[in-house]
Amino acid sequence: MNWSLEMVCSLLNWHRSKGYAGPVADHPNWVTRMNVRVEKQSWSTMLRLERDASEPLYHQLAGRIRDAIGRGELPAGMRLPATRQLATWLGVHRNTVVAAYRLLEQEGALHSAVGAGTFVQGGGEPDATSPAAERGAARAGGFSWRSLFRDPSRFELDPLSAMHPSGLQVADGAIQLTGAVPDSREFPMDAFGECVHEVLAGGDPNLLEYGPPEGDPSLREWIAQWLVQSGVPSIDPKRIFVISGSQQGIDLLSKLLLAPGDRVAIEEPTYSGAHLTLRHAGVRMVGVPVDDEGLSTAVLTEACARDRVRMLYTMPCFQNPTGVSLGQGRRAELLALAKERTLPIIEDHYDTPLYYDGSPPRPLLADDPDGMIIHLGTFSKILFPGLRLGWIVVPEPLCDVMRSLRWATDLSSGVLTQRIMDRFCRSGQLDEHLVRLRSLYGKRLRAMLQALPNHFPPGARWTRPRGGMTLWATLPAPLDSTALLREAAPKGVLFAPGPAFYPNGGGADGLRLTFNRETPARILKGITLLGELIQAQLRLPNVEPRPEDGALPPL
Amino acid sequence: MNWSLEMVCSLLNWHRSKGYAGPVADHPNWVTRMNVRVEKQSWSTMLRLERDASEPLYHQLAGRIRDAIGRGELPAGMRLPATRQLATWLGVHRNTVVAAYRLLEQEGALHSAVGAGTFVQGGGEPDATSPAAERGAARAGGFSWRSLFRDPSRFELDPLSAMHPSGLQVADGAIQLTGAVPDSREFPMDAFGECVHEVLAGGDPNLLEYGPPEGDPSLREWIAQWLVQSGVPSIDPKRIFVISGSQQGIDLLSKLLLAPGDRVAIEEPTYSGAHLTLRHAGVRMVGVPVDDEGLSTAVLTEACARDRVRMLYTMPCFQNPTGVSLGQGRRAELLALAKERTLPIIEDHYDTPLYYDGSPPRPLLADDPDGMIIHLGTFSKILFPGLRLGWIVVPEPLCDVMRSLRWATDLSSGVLTQRIMDRFCRSGQLDEHLVRLRSLYGKRLRAMLQALPNHFPPGARWTRPRGGMTLWATLPAPLDSTALLREAAPKGVLFAPGPAFYPNGGGADGLRLTFNRETPARILKGITLLGELIQAQLRLPNVEPRPEDGALPPL
Repeated sequence: MNWSLEMVCSLLNWHRSKGYAGPVADHPNWVTRMNVRVEKQSWSTMLRLERDASEPLYHQLAGRIRDAIGRGELPAGMRLPATRQLATWLGVHRNTVVAAYRLLEQEGALHSAVGAGTFVQGGGEPDATSPAAERGAARAGGFSWRSLFRDPSRFELDPLSAMHPSGLQVADGAIQLTGAVPDSREFPMDAFGECVHEVLAGGDPNLLEYGPPEGDPSLREWIAQWLVQSGVPSIDPKRIFVISGSQQGIDLLSKLLLAPGDRVAIEEPTYSGAHLTLRHAGVRMVGVPVDDEGLSTAVLTEACARDRVRMLYTMPCFQNPTGVSLGQGRRAELLALAKERTLPIIEDHYDTPLYYDGSPPRPLLADDPDGMIIHLGTFSKILFPGLRLGWIVVPEPLCDVMRSLRWATDLSSGVLTQRIMDRFCRSGQLDEHLVRLRSLYGKRLRAMLQALPNHFPPGARWTRPRGGMTLWATLPAPLDSTALLREAAPKGVLFAPGPAFYPNGGGADGLRLTFNRETPARILKGITLLGELIQAQLRLPNVEPRPEDGALPPL
Repeated sequence: MNWSLEMVCSLLNWHRSKGYAGPVADHPNWVTRMNVRVEKQSWSTMLRLERDASEPLYHQLAGRIRDAIGRGELPAGMRLPATRQLATWLGVHRNTVVAAYRLLEQEGALHSAVGAGTFVQGGGEPDATSPAAERGAARAGGFSWRSLFRDPSRFELDPLSAMHPSGLQVADGAIQLTGAVPDSREFPMDAFGECVHEVLAGGDPNLLEYGPPEGDPSLREWIAQWLVQSGVPSIDPKRIFVISGSQQGIDLLSKLLLAPGDRVAIEEPTYSGAHLTLRHAGVRMVGVPVDDEGLSTAVLTEACARDRVRMLYTMPCFQNPTGVSLGQGRRAELLALAKERTLPIIEDHYDTPLYYDGSPPRPLLADDPDGMIIHLGTFSKILFPGLRLGWIVVPEPLCDVMRSLRWATDLSSGVLTQRIMDRFCRSGQLDEHLVRLRSLYGKRLRAMLQALPNHFPPGARWTRPRGGMTLWATLPAPLDSTALLREAAPKGVLFAPGPAFYPNGGGADGLRLTFNRETPARILKGITLLGELIQAQLRLPNVEPRPEDGALPPL
């Protein structure tokens, strides 16, 4: 009889449900025999690799195995084929399989036992020799939590730790060329306090009651009117939902539009919070490179032709981390592609009121007759992150499901904070505050752009944003931005190293430099110091070469 | 050649990726031929039914098909077997298959075309004859959103609409025997305002900054100390995360511990917000009945023996909606079962400071040496829902992953609201407020328990809670609680009809009565009116019999 992989798995699962928990190698002989008879055809179908994709093969393979584990097609305790055998079946070099298995072992998805083979983690008690078991912290008093995580590999890696590597020594009072956050010293605390007192003055208990999932009606109406200023045509406030910020928007949309294994297009580099959410959702991120004109529509078009791409997450204006905006030609190409491929675009318009050249950038939402743009905005970058308020604008057909999604996730945003924000915005103080910030942050941007050519070495490059809070610099080879941070932080300068913005690995030569949080004098001081460190590195004879991007584990 | 279902699906997906979007019936002949050669074995493996389960067979079958669609095993546009054929293969009555297909058509997961068969929805343009296409609202300007929902069936039904059916006529000033919310007229607005002013007085800009995902350190410490009052041993504050409430806790845990198709045990009846989240997560809910001693540990034990149950969501104290608490014997049984089966317990301890018999209920967390309890608490029921603050206590091995989960979901709770809450709690005003509420709500509970036997007919039954906000009444057959609500609301009484608390259908004879939001006089008036309506219904000769629970579509 010709056993399909599906049938073997089903049998193994049945066996396991009856209490058997060990690795397959200890199974009765007949199960082992079946296992080895799983034919090449099933493995190569399940783990089909794409030779023309930009993603390295070992990384693709790890992803396919991870997904198959997530879908239950490779049950806990199952033995994987020997590396040599699988390499033959898939037509790849054995090292590719070795690298994929090793990556998954590091993630805790697989474990190997010397002489016995490589097994899917989880199920019964973890093998005492596995890395996951060694971690130890995953167990408490006999209750094995890690084995209960539905797909541990999704939760292994944290881009935040890449931004601030463990053990980093930071000098007191370090210059903050890091973060994509407002300068909190500029918060209009007095005006804010007055708004709070005015809102509370009435003693209305409804301020502290449950609110509707879609948000406060008055604030939604104000947002609708405000969007008109950036070129969006009159918009029905019912399409606007108050949420806690862009991060929540990405989470809500993931639940609706994505399933594990789906492909999502993202800019590379991009906001690390976005890829944290997408990693948790178990999707594959298809990186689309960014240059001075924004994301490469040519690469995106190819990616969509090759495979179904379920969603694009993009920041077309003042992209984080690069600060670049999408050019006019690419903008038209992107909108045409979205329509042709029925590709939903999530536009994160997160800090666009911070423009320094006199004209507000036009969101994609302003040119969306087909209702294919979902637009995210936030008060966190222009006012106060600590209130946790932002908004999402959805096409009309999504209004009902967004109410349900928000309710299921955390019911609603707080009523009190929404009323305070509504009062602040309607008092005209937001507009006043923005006029001040544009002038202040614009000067800081110019200070950084003036300092860079004087202190960074030849071969270094950087973007020239016209708004936002950050720019992106690229170091000359063979420098590594994480190594640079380890040197710079104890000397008093912080920045975000490139790998934090590359979910599929890469970015070692990049660094994000935040310009809006420090005075021009401190910016000059920080860039000077960074330049010195870079020059010193370059003069060293034995700089270790950076590993190839493709050889890095995903971040 | 013997084509497995997996191979056919893979081929169909490939075909589709090349741009083919129609139903399988229009495929070139060779694809159609392969399709019909998918053998009985694959279908009966994929859609394996459990004859000894409490869930009706048609409902199980619909769930299996829904899951297979969700996993991509039944791709969009694929034709399902004819009902007669599938019934033969699965060994069930043809009506079972018809009912399952019909349910999935109503959900929009399948569509049929007369003479052509039944097809998986989605993929290309929806079939113009399908119910989903008829809904119309799912399309805007040529961009078909509904076809992009990854699993539309998860988002079809909303327990909130069951609680407040569409078109319900509600009299002005209706008596609110509905909701599980505090009486907002009793909010200590002045004390709250003072705390706000004190917190703002310092003008600290950090109040409006981003905060850590785990929450404000001082508030977490206060929560740790407060838990000790309810019998929990000294607890490390690092195990406590400030979240926006129980709802968010359920959402975070779903992401970590559940995958589509998994089984989760819930009480029946239970909190509708919990099953909304679980439905969105695509899991199957295994209902465990509740009686005067709380959830039936016997039924739960059987369910765990039959299948892997991934998690239990329970309210062991003053359960919503019934108000009952878990008996001592069952408590011990539950803890033993959890340990034996490695079953994580999510304890929603949502309103337990509202006890009316002099002693605070002891959470399961107080007896958890093995670290298997995850404990949810909230300020929403004892103070202000509008601040959106609650907490989750996790076993130590989950601390790191909770930080990552919260960050990926919505970064953190707001700093300002946490500081205000911290000040309010530390000022001693929470304790004072609770003393008042216990006295006030206790009187209202007694008023309702006195009114019920005088006005509800023989055959009606109700629970006798010792805390919380709600109780559960059961109507004598053949009355229906949703029909009763439609009569009662325009006459001035609101309550929550039973089906809102039964995710798998059922509950038509139940109603949740909230006792803490109205004065004793209005409670008496409300119960009197409800009693009259029930008695009038019972005197009517032609009351339509309620359909059997099993025949209802899931709610």
